Amino acid sequence: MPEFLRNVRVVLARPSHPGNIGAAARAMRTMGLARLVLVAPERYPHPEASAMAANATGVLDAATLSPSLDAALAGTTLQIAFTARSRALSHAAMPVREAAQLAAGMLAAGPAAQIALVFGNETYGLSNEEVMRCNRTAYIPTDPEASSLNLAAAVQVAAYELWLAALDEEAAIAMRTGMPATREAAASANLAPHEDVERFFEHLEQSLYRSGFLLPGNPRRLMERMRRLYARSGLEPEEISVLRGMLSAWDGTGGRHGT
Amino acid sequence: MPEFLRNVRVVLARPSHPGNIGAAARAMRTMGLARLVLVAPERYPHPEASAMAANATGVLDAATLSPSLDAALAGTTLQIAFTARSRALSHAAMPVREAAQLAAGMLAAGPAAQIALVFGNETYGLSNEEVMRCNRTAYIPTDPEASSLNLAAAVQVAAYELWLAALDEEAAIAMRTGMPATREAAASANLAPHEDVERFFEHLEQSLYRSGFLLPGNPRRLMERMRRLYARSGLEPEEISVLRGMLSAWDGTGGRHGT
Repeated sequence: MPEFLRNVRVVLARPSHPGNIGAAARAMRTMGLARLVLVAPERYPHPEASAMAANATGVLDAATLSPSLDAALAGTTLQIAFTARSRALSHAAMPVREAAQLAAGMLAAGPAAQIALVFGNETYGLSNEEVMRCNRTAYIPTDPEASSLNLAAAVQVAAYELWLAALDEEAAIAMRTGMPATREAAASANLAPHEDVERFFEHLEQSLYRSGFLLPGNPRRLMERMRRLYARSGLEPEEISVLRGMLSAWDGTGGRHGT
Repeated sequence: MPEFLRNVRVVLARPSHPGNIGAAARAMRTMGLARLVLVAPERYPHPEASAMAANATGVLDAATLSPSLDAALAGTTLQIAFTARSRALSHAAMPVREAAQLAAGMLAAGPAAQIALVFGNETYGLSNEEVMRCNRTAYIPTDPEASSLNLAAAVQVAAYELWLAALDEEAAIAMRTGMPATREAAASANLAPHEDVERFFEHLEQSLYRSGFLLPGNPRRLMERMRRLYARSGLEPEEISVLRGMLSAWDGTGGRHGT
């Protein structure tokens, strides 16, 4: 079993039905995933969760509760938000298979990769704001007339694709063919942790107020546009420090590049 | 949606839990499958089945009851029995992705193909005898230490793989008949032209001089870093105009967002 799957967590944001939490734990276990994080579940712990977990009670017992999505994502370098295909979102969404290959490539590249698969509430999915806290958006291809999978079923498909992609990466490593991970995976292996990216966005927003470009009141559209742009590229730690240096210079509070 | 998916039926042999029947119906509907056949279900109809079907009550209402597996398979040309990997069976088992490609290829070849995806009881799976009524055996790759998927979760994964394989076959048919349009072409159609991207980089460099962040002399390293970042994301026309608006505001020569 690919050891690097330990660096994957499944995050369920505000799940309503305890049965789905247990079924998600079972789905995870069949595909070698063990870390479940629950953000503000409506009812948990609950006997239905335990019943649906079947022989994956270990995953359920080790599940952690998180007060916020940001706390659940702390330390992750790749956050994949799962949404229904039909949503018009600002992040370009990729099919789950591609997302799994990206994730597995990063995981295989080294232990710096910490990955979150993020799923929303059964009825409402992830809010736009929640999607914006993640740097990738993925969808499960479906019949366009019936795009809503059961929550645990969606976790099952995502975990299955990640398991297959992880086996491929593991085989490549074992064969020592020197086969590189995909270019994107290699490039994004060095991504900055979630909290540093968030601090950059806060800084950007403040700078845009100071400059007069943004008027207080409704910055959301513009900041979403910026999040979408930088989510496509991913941000490396050094890039964040350069970008924040630029902002400080524009703010009139900063120094010079390379000094 | 691939029309030929009408020639697929999902057969559940002796399911125990009505909730799983409903959840299987929902899983089928998300992947364009409509024909559900139940062989001797323990409890059916049942309110739990309806509850778990969510908006796939149509699939459930149209489900047929069959007294025997043979009757359920009548008229089919390909019967794929799903079993856990570990079972030592006389049929060579293939992974579900391969089975789905086989099935989709047959479906696309013509209306003579009638295909059954066959799943066993939650606790015991398919009996050896039931597997022998089918002409193919497939398994869902799993962590070998936890190979038991929930019944509806297994239906979801199988239906998902068949849906993807069917889309591939449909695209191949469309290409043979001269229909164009790849997703990739559509995605990259919205990128800004080269010259606009270049003007943005010039503007950025000028702004960085004005702010004092860059000293005249050797901006190359920094600008290369920025080029690399934005090349990863690609820049759309509207993004360039927003970014340049920000730069103008920081320069003190610009207006406000949205005015």
